[in-house]
Amino acid sequence: MLHIVVLGAGRSAGYFIDYMFQLCKSHQWKLTIADQHTEHLETLFSGYSNAQLKKADVTIASERELLISEANWVVSMLPAFMHTIVAKDCLRLGVNMATASYESDEMRAMRPEIVSKGLQFINECGLDPGIDHMSAMQIIDRLHSEGAQITSFKSYCGGLVAQECIDNPWGYKFSWNPRNVILAGQGTAKYLENDRLKFKPYSRLFREPDSIRFANGTLYDGYPNRDSLSYKEIYGLNEIKTMVRGTLRHTGYCRAWNIFVQLGLTDDSYTFPLSDSTTYFDFFEAFLPGKGDNLKSRLLEFMGSDYEAESVEKILWTGITENVTIPLKGNYSPAFILQDLLERKWKLQPQDRDLVVMQHMFEYTLDGKNMQLSSSLHIEGENNIQTAMGKTVGIPLAISLKNLLLGNCTQKGLLLPVIPALYSPVLRELENDFNIRFEEVETEI
Amino acid sequence: MLHIVVLGAGRSAGYFIDYMFQLCKSHQWKLTIADQHTEHLETLFSGYSNAQLKKADVTIASERELLISEANWVVSMLPAFMHTIVAKDCLRLGVNMATASYESDEMRAMRPEIVSKGLQFINECGLDPGIDHMSAMQIIDRLHSEGAQITSFKSYCGGLVAQECIDNPWGYKFSWNPRNVILAGQGTAKYLENDRLKFKPYSRLFREPDSIRFANGTLYDGYPNRDSLSYKEIYGLNEIKTMVRGTLRHTGYCRAWNIFVQLGLTDDSYTFPLSDSTTYFDFFEAFLPGKGDNLKSRLLEFMGSDYEAESVEKILWTGITENVTIPLKGNYSPAFILQDLLERKWKLQPQDRDLVVMQHMFEYTLDGKNMQLSSSLHIEGENNIQTAMGKTVGIPLAISLKNLLLGNCTQKGLLLPVIPALYSPVLRELENDFNIRFEEVETEI
Repeated sequence: MLHIVVLGAGRSAGYFIDYMFQLCKSHQWKLTIADQHTEHLETLFSGYSNAQLKKADVTIASERELLISEANWVVSMLPAFMHTIVAKDCLRLGVNMATASYESDEMRAMRPEIVSKGLQFINECGLDPGIDHMSAMQIIDRLHSEGAQITSFKSYCGGLVAQECIDNPWGYKFSWNPRNVILAGQGTAKYLENDRLKFKPYSRLFREPDSIRFANGTLYDGYPNRDSLSYKEIYGLNEIKTMVRGTLRHTGYCRAWNIFVQLGLTDDSYTFPLSDSTTYFDFFEAFLPGKGDNLKSRLLEFMGSDYEAESVEKILWTGITENVTIPLKGNYSPAFILQDLLERKWKLQPQDRDLVVMQHMFEYTLDGKNMQLSSSLHIEGENNIQTAMGKTVGIPLAISLKNLLLGNCTQKGLLLPVIPALYSPVLRELENDFNIRFEEVETEI
Repeated sequence: MLHIVVLGAGRSAGYFIDYMFQLCKSHQWKLTIADQHTEHLETLFSGYSNAQLKKADVTIASERELLISEANWVVSMLPAFMHTIVAKDCLRLGVNMATASYESDEMRAMRPEIVSKGLQFINECGLDPGIDHMSAMQIIDRLHSEGAQITSFKSYCGGLVAQECIDNPWGYKFSWNPRNVILAGQGTAKYLENDRLKFKPYSRLFREPDSIRFANGTLYDGYPNRDSLSYKEIYGLNEIKTMVRGTLRHTGYCRAWNIFVQLGLTDDSYTFPLSDSTTYFDFFEAFLPGKGDNLKSRLLEFMGSDYEAESVEKILWTGITENVTIPLKGNYSPAFILQDLLERKWKLQPQDRDLVVMQHMFEYTLDGKNMQLSSSLHIEGENNIQTAMGKTVGIPLAISLKNLLLGNCTQKGLLLPVIPALYSPVLRELENDFNIRFEEVETEI
């Protein structure tokens, strides 16, 4: 009997676990979900005796190894830094492994041994990375098979909040890891534009976002990810002239966020001392030049004459300039203090529906014609538990795993869902059974 | 017979080695200078049989230990990262140690063992750190002894080039480690202003430099160092309201340098691929937004309407926008590519005289009066070998060492030159024998 062990079962794993439970039940496979907290899953885990919940602390090597040694497949839903540790165990114990996270350098170093042991390790099977690769590769493979030459590829994705649920000036609420949002873009973004390498450092990443228009007319801010070119070869786009992969935000978000960046409030490299009485105003004053009570005009002066009052209003809305005591005590980085505040301000409320948006924009030449093809995804969540984010991360991971468990892809080694045997069944099922489908618009340019 | 072993003897160590040679000769102490290259010192090392040059690679543990085990005192003139390694050897082998560099956390962790072994380890005995501490502490101790309350302390230092030797628009040439100049200010600067903590991130450190006026009327740009407050307790300035320690540059340097920062050219965290034919123009274009041949107007547009053409001219002067092949081949960080270019453009020529400037500015209250006291240093070099920088780093280190060798300070442990027994003899000899003296101007405010 095949035995699948899932490590980690946070609240965002609901869709994935539901799917896995039904899958294992219908195939009579054994399923174990291990986490420090499993109470919230107890009602689900009834009616199938080979599905079990285990309370375990998988940061302890012995507990982790015991679980892994009994598995044929391990799925790590743990924080990303744990994947490498789990992968080493899986490799040693001869167990296959899947994650929705980025393939790491450490895992790449294991590639020869994964191959020689005849194992399958698959990563990047969630949303971004995941659905982005799958949907882009389906188009790229189709265009290439038709003889098209792809000259430009721009791909953006964002985890946002549905238009009707926007009740703050940022148009943003957290639907996934807040820390990643606060630290987003640190380093230098690298992309390709008209056959030239382009670099954009953090200090100007949010200043001039691109304006990304969706087929339904909606405009979003888009800013490039750290390395847009790492998938150039993997996607087989060796001759491409323009390639950008980026992140979407509600229009206006980026220039307002740039104020936090310019002030230094997103710095995670040192700590700020918070006493019992330190207020947000005290904290903010430590970063804002100038003097005086009119913070709005000081912020506008700080950002320069071309900056808009609207962006400053967004900053004031967060409460970061208010004479309110900061609930944290001790030494925390500015980025952490900001995150703690925004987690309260940008909290997804019970009836809020989150939003996942993605758009690929291709330019290609075929039969002497210059064509443009956009392919967009727009998925809204049900509430703050059944989120679009949880669904679009969890379901493709589960389907990818099913596909491998059923032996539909026999390639061994370290895998990414960029080949038809891996992406086709996932995209088909997402469309047919979950209504997760891309809208394509093709025009001659 | 006391035996002093000096590890490292780069070209900038000339003043230090001259002094040590005369000192050891007159006291009949044994002196060993160890370096991979010692040829340039051979003519100096004659006439005293107990002074010897040793060719050695002190990165090899066995070679290093052999040298250290024969010493009573070791002076490390090696790159800063080597000091900790040398310190561990000295601690194990029971040898005293001196450097002109910052006391590191690793060395602080050794403090109990240094004390228990009855050793003396002294750091920060050069210029900055070094003369800055000594000269500031002499004034602070004097003011405190008079009953003054010091409310503000601003201290700036710069290694520049003499006015008559300025033949480039930056007013700058390298007189010390170029890498430190290129990477200067990365992180977030922290200082105290009117009893408030203030933070300035790298992205705006060079945008609005302070204007620092010397007693002779000269104005310099000044920008705050990373942590101005780390010496607050050490200096005994617990009640101070304003405290800034910073770096001086020729007026106009900072805003021009900010263009490199904003473009991302000072980033040392990733590599840029250089082919056989990559030109500076190609490299520069990867960072500059927009299109077109008029780089000057593109740069001005990039920096915003309030930026001055003069700063852009400084960038163009470096040659970084020219269609000239970059001599480096392979993968280098943007910061390294910029450093390599500037090392040629900002090279100190044989007849160039470098310049060391330092200014302390105190505000204090005494007998109901509010007073301001400035104390400034202005030292010019002789040529590109006998530099003001080499002199002001090497001589105070040598005098500090002499003072300890003669037993004039019996305190054991990890020392800094912030107590009279350590700073007084150095400042006195610097003034009397080397004409390194501060000018004081005191006014009521």
